Amino acid sequence: MKPVVTIEYCPRCGWMLRAAYMAQELLTTFTDDVHGVLIQPSEVNGRYNIRVDDVKIFDRKEEGRFPEIKELKQLVRDKVNPEKSLGHSDKSKPLH
Amino acid sequence: MKPVVTIEYCPRCGWMLRAAYMAQELLTTFTDDVHGVLIQPSEVNGRYNIRVDDVKIFDRKEEGRFPEIKELKQLVRDKVNPEKSLGHSDKSKPLH
Repeated sequence: MKPVVTIEYCPRCGWMLRAAYMAQELLTTFTDDVHGVLIQPSEVNGRYNIRVDDVKIFDRKEEGRFPEIKELKQLVRDKVNPEKSLGHSDKSKPLH
Repeated sequence: MKPVVTIEYCPRCGWMLRAAYMAQELLTTFTDDVHGVLIQPSEVNGRYNIRVDDVKIFDRKEEGRFPEIKELKQLVRDKVNPEKSLGHSDKSKPLH
């Protein structure tokens, strides 16, 4: 089965809309590469984790920030379809 | 484990935003009642199904329409937390 991307968010922190936005970005880009995106309310306060199947690819607590979308897509791409080009956003250089 | 609600949508039909909207409605109402909401691109054209774990609770093909949100919440509630009141929207009478 194709991988499931899970976005686990803290509902008490008001992060549901953010999680849903990121889910839509991932579903737009990885429609054919994933089984689906699971949006999961966390029981742990302050948690915002993103996993591909059981592998955590981003943890807000560890990073001290939320992921950028470009970064998130690269992290997911590396797990679900490493050959896939993300087009113009797939540069490693900063934008400035 | 708490139940997973799955919204399986046809991406070629342009129904991703609709699925994401319904996911957000369900996450708002059933934050503590579900494990999460899985948004799943379908490989079948024209499909728009909603499941609670493995039990299908709505099928666009069978109904010939999309679910109303009120109706959808009642269907999910009946599976995940039958005692839960949905408040003012939880009437069985039509609105006219």
